[in-house]
This record gives sequence, structure tokens and C-alpha cells, in this order.
Amino acid sequence: MTEKTKQAEDGATMESRVRDSFERQGLMRHLGAVIASVAPGMVHIRMPYRQELTQQHGFFHAGATSAIADSAGGYAGFTLFPPGSSVLTVEFKINLMAPARGEYLEAVGKVIRSGRTLTICQLEVFGVTGEERTLVAMGQQTLICMHGKPDSLSAQA
Amino acid sequence: MTEKTKQAEDGATMESRVRDSFERQGLMRHLGAVIASVAPGMVHIRMPYRQELTQQHGFFHAGATSAIADSAGGYAGFTLFPPGSSVLTVEFKINLMAPARGEYLEAVGKVIRSGRTLTICQLEVFGVTGEERTLVAMGQQTLICMHGKPDSLSAQA
Amino acid sequence: MTEKTKQAEDGATMESRVRDSFERQGLMRHLGAVIASVAPGMVHIRMPYRQELTQQHGFFHAGATSAIADSAGGYAGFTLFPPGSSVLTVEFKINLMAPARGEYLEAVGKVIRSGRTLTICQLEVFGVTGEERTLVAMGQQTLICMHGKPDSLSAQA
Amino acid sequence: MTEKTKQAEDGATMESRVRDSFERQGLMRHLGAVIASVAPGMVHIRMPYRQELTQQHGFFHAGATSAIADSAGGYAGFTLFPPGSSVLTVEFKINLMAPARGEYLEAVGKVIRSGRTLTICQLEVFGVTGEERTLVAMGQQTLICMHGKPDSLSAQA
Repeated sequence: MTEKTKQAEDGATMESRVRDSFERQGLMRHLGAVIASVAPGMVHIRMPYRQELTQQHGFFHAGATSAIADSAGGYAGFTLFPPGSSVLTVEFKINLMAPARGEYLEAVGKVIRSGRTLTICQLEVFGVTGEERTLVAMGQQTLICMHGKPDSLSAQA
Repeated sequence: MTEKTKQAEDGATMESRVRDSFERQGLMRHLGAVIASVAPGMVHIRMPYRQELTQQHGFFHAGATSAIADSAGGYAGFTLFPPGSSVLTVEFKINLMAPARGEYLEAVGKVIRSGRTLTICQLEVFGVTGEERTLVAMGQQTLICMHGKPDSLSAQA
Repeated sequence: MTEKTKQAEDGATMESRVRDSFERQGLMRHLGAVIASVAPGMVHIRMPYRQELTQQHGFFHAGATSAIADSAGGYAGFTLFPPGSSVLTVEFKINLMAPARGEYLEAVGKVIRSGRTLTICQLEVFGVTGEERTLVAMGQQTLICMHGKPDSLSAQA
Repeated sequence: MTEKTKQAEDGATMESRVRDSFERQGLMRHLGAVIASVAPGMVHIRMPYRQELTQQHGFFHAGATSAIADSAGGYAGFTLFPPGSSVLTVEFKINLMAPARGEYLEAVGKVIRSGRTLTICQLEVFGVTGEERTLVAMGQQTLICMHGKPDSLSAQA
């Protein structure tokens, strides 16, 4: 097996680790959010417009915008975590910069610094309509890696 | 009509202004969140546990926690805004301090400083089970008052 | 030795641990900041007004305000850390709510949650003139406890 | 006078407006910070290492790091403000990602969105030693434009 093949497999493993976890997030399904892409240190999540996601003026609610931003950042960090660990959000901060409207929102989580314990991500959310893509929110997030606590074990149980 | 009666009516008007706006938030209904109380500068929102609100370990998702924190703060600020204005979240920051679990979450938004243009709120979210009440998240939020833009006009239309 | 005497000694040890560390902060001395009080989970720092601390309008600069807020929170967390550990600021967020003026600023750092690895503090800064005390800034901070890295070892050397 | 010449003059006016204001910031002088460059929507500030800027381990103090980050962002926003206005920091959030060490720190403030009232900036701080340049802090800032309040009027007086 060549080094290149091995890396491709690792990439597939990483992606399925992320997608498995994402599918266990009841909230993402409830909001209609889906993973658009997974790469090392970067994850895109899309969420089509629905009346169920709105604030009082009919835009996407800041809470819905933040939810996919938080998940995109969390999974961006998770792509770089060692197997058998899980991810928790320590905190995040988000600026809502423009009315969150569009056919769908796309959140981009990107790792800025990945440490053994803490990971820092940048969060961006775009409102997309056809070819038009507007930055509607930007944030910054701190994650913690829980070593030796596999992501697939339910903590609620 | 005494001054006291007049204030009571104003309080009722304020509360109905908040509740009308809240009912137009599709996201809050979709998450099963309800207003528990409205007072000048302080709003409580409750959200019962459901599988549709979870992250990958079965706790409330940080996005759901943040969504009700954001709405609680926004409406806390809105109680102090003049009639005919509306409220937008400029930004917020939230620390997820403990696993968000319980029969329901209760978000408390509280105005710390109310200015003509900007309002600063403190956000707290508690996980509640029976008599047990645990602080699971704490945040800080900046709101902007949109003067002359009534809250009931749909901006999406 | 009674239990009460032992606790009093522990308190004195804790306070001297904080004051020793504070004295090694070149910036605090340079800004003229002093510790006003140390208690478990809460530290007050004062900084008298000087032209050397101003922004362009003659108020205390947000950077000076933030610096003492950060130190107050950091040492509030440090009071609860085990001996032989040190404290680092992971991140903080601060709202500058009113012009920072007065004879002196007083920063109050207060621990909200103290975990083994991470500690969350609330930060408040007051502008004080005589009996008048105005909240000029409020923030939230995440600290990390570096176990087994005594605070007195210089990392720069 | 060609359009190009006129723009060059405007650029010079903008830069002198920023530098004049910066020179009135007593704190920046006290910290030994200087403006390295001014461009529309982006300002660089440098601050050489001195014992007077340290925290307890000999690194740059988070408060010093934050102070130049705040000023860099504030002036980045200010470059785009109309004449006769002034700038105030509403809030900022900063992650301290690596030990802040080096011959000097360089803060970069960059406007992400400039609105009539509010401006959002990204803040980065690098520790620089010779050719080595390490990102030590990253933040996000909200500014407010005070229309009709010239920056040169002292508000403290």
C-alpha cells in the first residue's frame, strides 16, 4: 500500500468519524442542516431556509445561525483530534453582521490553532442565494479535546 | 386613573409586545421554547428536553442552549425599548460550563446597561430537574435598538 | 493547631502566592495597578488615573481597562488552583459600557465555575470618584490551570 | 488635479487623522507602541519587548497584547469613518493562543464590515523575532462611529 493510498484511507476514516457524530446530533437533523464538506481542519454545513428557522422579521434566527456555526467549528476541530477522543465547545463568540437571509446558510468552521487540550476555530456563516454569497456572521470558538472519551458513547445515558 | 394603574397597563402592553414578537419567531416554536416570564429588563425562556435538541452525546446542543439565551437577552432588552422600535442582536459570547442536561433548560436574559442605541445583557442558562438547578452556560450580549422600525413589520418580505 | 487556625494560614498562603505572582507582572507595576483585596475566588485590583493610561479622549484606554480586568480574573482563578500550578488566560471578552473615568478604576474578578482544567470568571470594572461608583466594563474570561508548572518559574528565560 | 492625485491626498489626510489620534493615546506611548502602517481598513501597530510589559512568567501580558490589538482594530475602523466623527470600542473578544514572546509584538486590525453605526474588525497579534512570525492572539471587535463628535475634542475635560 502506498503512502498516498494510506492517507486517502485516513481521510475517509476521518470523514466517516465526523459524519457518524453529526448524525447523532438531533438538533442538526431538526434544523435541516447537512454537512457539505469535510477536510482536515475545515468543515462546511448547509441549512436551507424554512419558516421553522426564523426570528421575528423572517430572517434566519441568530440561534439557528449560531447552531450551525458551532457545529461547523466543533467538527473542524474534531477532524484533527486523535481517535478515541471527543469534542466539547468551551465557548464561542459570534457577530451577526448582516440580515441572515438566502436560499440557505453555509457555515464554515476552520481550525486556527490545534493544541493537545484546546483548539481555536474561526467561524463564518454566509447567506447564499444563487451565485450571491454574503457574509452574515463571523465568530471565534474554543474547543476542548476529551482524550479517552470516545465520541460515540452517550453521556446522557 | 391612578399612576399605579397606568404603570400596570404599561407592563401589560410591554409583555404583549414581547409575546407577540416571540410568537413570530419560527425557531422558538420549532425548538419547543416558551416564555416563562417577562419583567422590565428581564425575560425567562424555558425549553423542555427532546431528542430533537441534542448534540452527539445526548445533551442539549450548544446551539439550542445559545438560541434560547439569545432570545431571552434580546427580549429582555426589548422590554425597555420605546414603542415602534425593534431589536437586533449585534453579537454574543457564551461559555458552555457544564453538560446541558435536565428536564428543561431555562434561559435568563438580564439587561445590564440600556443605552439609546446599544444595550448590554447578561445571559444565563440553567439545566433544571425537579428542584435541582445547575448553571450550564453564561454569556454576554450586545443588542441594537432600531428606532422607527416597528418589530411587527416583516423584513424578509 | 485548631482547624480554624489552619484555614487562616491557608488563606495567608493563598494571598501571598497571589501577591508574589502579581509583583512579577511588570505590566501591572508599569500601569500603577495594585491588588486591593484577595479572597477565595475573588480579587480586586485598583489603578489610579494617570495621563499614561489614556485613549485619545482622555478616558482610561480600553486596553488599560482590559489589562486589570484580565489580571483580576486570572488571580481570582489562581486563588482556587492547587499549589505548584500556574494560570494562563485562554480568552476573554469585554464590553466597554460607559466612558472609563474616575479617580481610579477598580477591577473585580470573580470565579463562576472552577474545574480541574478550565475556570470561568466574570469580570467587572468600575470607575470610582469619591463615593460614586460606575460600572464601566463587564467581561467573561476562560482560564486554564497548568498543573505541575509552578507559577514562580520564568518561562521566558 | 487628477483623480489619482486627489485619492493620494485623501490617503495622506486619513493617515494623519489616525496618527494624530494615536499620539493622543497616553497608553500607547507608555507601552512603547508605534503605528507601523495605515491603509484603508487596516492598521498595524508594533510594540517592542520590555520588562514593563510582562506577566508573571516574563511573556508579554495579555493586557498589553490586548491593548495594541484594540487600538489596531479601532484605528482600522477609524480609517473608514467620515471626517468629524470619532471611534469607540463597544466590545472585543480575544483568544491568547500561544505564549506572547518575541523581539516585538505586531497587532493587525482589519475591518470585516463597516456599517454606518457599527464596524466589525478582526484582530491578530504576532510575536516576531527576526524572520519568525507566530500568531499569538486572535480576536474580534465591535466599534461604534460617533457621528458629529470630532476625535480631537477631549471628552475628559
